[in-house]
Amino acid sequence: MIVRNGKKIRFSTILSTFGNRYDRYCVSGYKKNKSIEEMFVAASKVQGLEGIELVGGRQVNEENLSHINQLKSNFGFEISSIIVDLFSEAVWKKGSFTSVDETIRKEAINKVKRYMDIAPELGCDLVCLWFAQDGFDYVFQSDYIKSWNFLVNSLKQCATYRHDVKIGVEYKIKEPRTYNFIANIGKTLSLLSKVGEDNIGIILDVGHALCAYENMAESVALCKFFGDKLFHIHFNDNYRHWDDDMIIGSVHVPEYLELIYWLKKVNYNGWYSIDIYPYREEGTDAVNECIRWLRKLIELVDNFDQSEIERVINSGEGIKSIMLVREMLFGK
Amino acid sequence: MIVRNGKKIRFSTILSTFGNRYDRYCVSGYKKNKSIEEMFVAASKVQGLEGIELVGGRQVNEENLSHINQLKSNFGFEISSIIVDLFSEAVWKKGSFTSVDETIRKEAINKVKRYMDIAPELGCDLVCLWFAQDGFDYVFQSDYIKSWNFLVNSLKQCATYRHDVKIGVEYKIKEPRTYNFIANIGKTLSLLSKVGEDNIGIILDVGHALCAYENMAESVALCKFFGDKLFHIHFNDNYRHWDDDMIIGSVHVPEYLELIYWLKKVNYNGWYSIDIYPYREEGTDAVNECIRWLRKLIELVDNFDQSEIERVINSGEGIKSIMLVREMLFGK
Amino acid sequence: MIVRNGKKIRFSTILSTFGNRYDRYCVSGYKKNKSIEEMFVAASKVQGLEGIELVGGRQVNEENLSHINQLKSNFGFEISSIIVDLFSEAVWKKGSFTSVDETIRKEAINKVKRYMDIAPELGCDLVCLWFAQDGFDYVFQSDYIKSWNFLVNSLKQCATYRHDVKIGVEYKIKEPRTYNFIANIGKTLSLLSKVGEDNIGIILDVGHALCAYENMAESVALCKFFGDKLFHIHFNDNYRHWDDDMIIGSVHVPEYLELIYWLKKVNYNGWYSIDIYPYREEGTDAVNECIRWLRKLIELVDNFDQSEIERVINSGEGIKSIMLVREMLFGK
Amino acid sequence: MIVRNGKKIRFSTILSTFGNRYDRYCVSGYKKNKSIEEMFVAASKVQGLEGIELVGGRQVNEENLSHINQLKSNFGFEISSIIVDLFSEAVWKKGSFTSVDETIRKEAINKVKRYMDIAPELGCDLVCLWFAQDGFDYVFQSDYIKSWNFLVNSLKQCATYRHDVKIGVEYKIKEPRTYNFIANIGKTLSLLSKVGEDNIGIILDVGHALCAYENMAESVALCKFFGDKLFHIHFNDNYRHWDDDMIIGSVHVPEYLELIYWLKKVNYNGWYSIDIYPYREEGTDAVNECIRWLRKLIELVDNFDQSEIERVINSGEGIKSIMLVREMLFGK
Repeated sequence: MIVRNGKKIRFSTILSTFGNRYDRYCVSGYKKNKSIEEMFVAASKVQGLEGIELVGGRQVNEENLSHINQLKSNFGFEISSIIVDLFSEAVWKKGSFTSVDETIRKEAINKVKRYMDIAPELGCDLVCLWFAQDGFDYVFQSDYIKSWNFLVNSLKQCATYRHDVKIGVEYKIKEPRTYNFIANIGKTLSLLSKVGEDNIGIILDVGHALCAYENMAESVALCKFFGDKLFHIHFNDNYRHWDDDMIIGSVHVPEYLELIYWLKKVNYNGWYSIDIYPYREEGTDAVNECIRWLRKLIELVDNFDQSEIERVINSGEGIKSIMLVREMLFGK
Repeated sequence: MIVRNGKKIRFSTILSTFGNRYDRYCVSGYKKNKSIEEMFVAASKVQGLEGIELVGGRQVNEENLSHINQLKSNFGFEISSIIVDLFSEAVWKKGSFTSVDETIRKEAINKVKRYMDIAPELGCDLVCLWFAQDGFDYVFQSDYIKSWNFLVNSLKQCATYRHDVKIGVEYKIKEPRTYNFIANIGKTLSLLSKVGEDNIGIILDVGHALCAYENMAESVALCKFFGDKLFHIHFNDNYRHWDDDMIIGSVHVPEYLELIYWLKKVNYNGWYSIDIYPYREEGTDAVNECIRWLRKLIELVDNFDQSEIERVINSGEGIKSIMLVREMLFGK
Repeated sequence: MIVRNGKKIRFSTILSTFGNRYDRYCVSGYKKNKSIEEMFVAASKVQGLEGIELVGGRQVNEENLSHINQLKSNFGFEISSIIVDLFSEAVWKKGSFTSVDETIRKEAINKVKRYMDIAPELGCDLVCLWFAQDGFDYVFQSDYIKSWNFLVNSLKQCATYRHDVKIGVEYKIKEPRTYNFIANIGKTLSLLSKVGEDNIGIILDVGHALCAYENMAESVALCKFFGDKLFHIHFNDNYRHWDDDMIIGSVHVPEYLELIYWLKKVNYNGWYSIDIYPYREEGTDAVNECIRWLRKLIELVDNFDQSEIERVINSGEGIKSIMLVREMLFGK
Repeated sequence: MIVRNGKKIRFSTILSTFGNRYDRYCVSGYKKNKSIEEMFVAASKVQGLEGIELVGGRQVNEENLSHINQLKSNFGFEISSIIVDLFSEAVWKKGSFTSVDETIRKEAINKVKRYMDIAPELGCDLVCLWFAQDGFDYVFQSDYIKSWNFLVNSLKQCATYRHDVKIGVEYKIKEPRTYNFIANIGKTLSLLSKVGEDNIGIILDVGHALCAYENMAESVALCKFFGDKLFHIHFNDNYRHWDDDMIIGSVHVPEYLELIYWLKKVNYNGWYSIDIYPYREEGTDAVNECIRWLRKLIELVDNFDQSEIERVINSGEGIKSIMLVREMLFGK
């Protein structure tokens, strides 16, 4: 058990990590399709996994709610978030909250509200909104001001619908659109400040931050600076040019150390949730390995002399920083 | 009719451009599925389209060959290339020619040979090989030397199987793997020189060149320089960080002018083939618009004083270059 | 003369564009050094140039103020902005407003205030602040929260120093630091909203927006959406991966058309200022060519049926967008 | 002492690492200028440094050769390479071997030959050629075929001038030009195969490989595959989008492990040379830290069960790869 800031760290992942994975070429998927039950079984084999994120749509809905609750209890999981599906069906192809079609905008808002009602039924107080289809591909394809107005107003409607459920907005710079509106930490913070509701915050996806050329520790710090806005975090890794959704530890080890440090420093107490796409790998193994990496990185950071870390940071000396990383990783 | 270097320009596209389009999130696709017949009908509505590229696998194979030939004739198309499908099924997920499994390597080579036999039956002398799954995602996941040996030997086997069919190798820096072996113009030229067979050349995809931070006109010139290796070209556009497969004209207008110029200069006489992914757009409209752009760009280049273009290039003066682009686009 | 929204368009550039240009390898520069007088002479040869941006530091200061005013009058220029030099001297190497050294922070703030006093003496109401050295290179090298606090508090001090001078903050994602704090439109808008003073706004550099994977038209629109925050604009072009500071028209023609359109749509009435680095080109020629491009692009946009542009934008149809671009460039 | 493949590892760096560092904004440099003697003194303080790379031009030339030899002996260094300066003076601004001006081309070739004569006088058998200015910035600015012909012919002239001196060609995708001809591993291998001389090979700069989206271990393997072409290596690190020339260990730890492994596997026996730009850091400290990282990484790789590494690589299983990295770094 790992304790940080007096609270136990809890690991979580997205249920579909254990299912099949597709891309635009391999449409039938690289692996076998799995039923919800099979994915729960796969999840149950991960060491130390306590939370599951569910996609609100075909995966969980009013119809199968009691069945899902049953599975959740049987396997002893908590539901860490409900990701409202505003992206996997053709109806959303030109946007949800920012569609030029009013009917679609309303449908999207209603879907979010429905899942704000469903989440507590699953013992979960967080819905995750990722506006994957809200953006544009071509120049002269969007009235940006109208679109941003739609974003602000719709989020406001959702946030005020019920204050006991938190809304986490997950930013991403592109994909599936070539340009997404809610692209990076800065735009998201600006948006949230305009919405102005306490129950709206940010879901930081490490890979999305890397794709936006962010230092993810700084992004965590800015969530704090602009008002304790970090609601949830998605861990993964990539080569910076695309959201490769790889296993933790694949590429960015020093940056991960710094991120882990700042999560403690800003008193983040939410889930440590894993969001990867193991296209060609077995899901259970992949999540297990992510948790092994996270445990190790947390141990390396937390067992290091915290005042020395502070001294190095406050010195602003690059060489001291890299020496610190080396000593954290390998000892003095 | 546009004539360059004494030959009529012929436009082509990939048949599946007219079908449904998927991505990793929207697995059922943004549009409706279409039968082969429906795609041929859609293609027949494009102004000035003469060639069709087919995917060799489920789309065309020994079983339906006569039916495809019938469709081809009915609609008056030629087959500009057969793209051998070494990417859309899970069996290839860790490579075809470079799989660590010998059975899979042999299966891949045999598939290529089969399509080298099928192509002439369709009046086509070019098979397109895109090694989408041959690469790696993680460090320590590939014995690079073994893999490159497999590439050289397998390509050699295919090239010598029959010399009357040309093999075009299409490079791409990544996707679906995070690293593809046959990544860019330089690696492909090195590979081909090692294979050392005349009937192997390059298929230049404009978007792939842009993703590899190539100037595509230089890539065309290098195909010439290293031995008349440009066999075929795929036109599209993107924002450079990813293979967005957008409509021609979307982003890179000056670079397209230069590319069009160099295609003439190196005496390229192959197809002008369009390879786009209109996820959210109607296929016929999208290809029509691409051809309108290509016609216009060719007209602008070919109607310009060719000796002035040469003078500007030979001056090496950047300002003259940009003045040239402006005058090509808008007149003097 | 070009009139937009009832006001004449005025072109400007940075004086040092006409001087020598260096990079980290060619430290003595690619061209000859020029005196201030020689640069004014070079500027005076540009067709239609009315404004000059000066670097506040060695280029203009309390000592040579009357001489500069003389030159300005002799050549008939206005001063469009004073760029306060917080970047070209070793003292700023680890930041100005965010230095860990209080003395340096104060020195920086005082320098800004000094130039807020100098600007009006030159008939100029805008100082440009580009925090080039405020950022970090390594992990664990910055206390992000402290740094952002410094930014907010220092900007507040400057803004309230005198309200009749506008402060424009120019964002850039990196260079010279590998990470700059004020990195993109979103972070800058968040920062300004925290500062909360009317006389602080944004200087949008087109190349900086491109490097941050922004669509610059959207960035202009967001300045409007978050409170009429676009104070000034710097035009140039690049290949997206680095701030190449190239001549306008080099790469991004369709995106430039959309930018030009949105400047009108949001009623931008400031300078159209050129910020390029003609390392290997003659300055006067380079700026002349930029103005020729800008004039042409404005003409193409403004002479097009504005209601058709609106219709296309409101349709959200990518194909219509690209048809619009084609027709804007080449006619119907 | 570290022994690999029966030979002692020898560390080297570029002398100017200990001097002042500039960028295009801070033209007078972030640090103090140092004389050659002072730089040798600084180098002598690095633990375990045995080799020095010198810039052939103002730093070392026929005039000061005996003085340099004296310094070298006094401090007990070997000269690991001579970098022929074809980049730091305005004369090369539009290319050296590919200049459109024949006089400049000849001057460049002669300079290389001069340093092929000087190198042995310093006990060094390697000249490093980095064609920094040979490329283009704008479209229509280069006749690519002529330029590549110049490259091939000039390199041939140099290589055949004397066979006892090795020529190392260092590729880089851009900077200072926006496009460099000798851009990546593939183009360089193609070029060398056309030149066809044994004494021409490749200098792999890790940061340049990263900027070209290469996996540097694969690049090392390809040098082997295409004929034992790895002559020398430059170590540093960056964030992939630009040649940041940072301290080793800053970013890419797992990729460095794999690189270190492959250097052994391909029997690389050359120098382990450090090429960083410590703009804001003290040179001796920075190089010391690089060597500490290299030693540690070599130790981690070489002390690991080599047959297990082979097994993991040959499995092609991503999860096993990441487990391997974790166990290499932190033990089982």
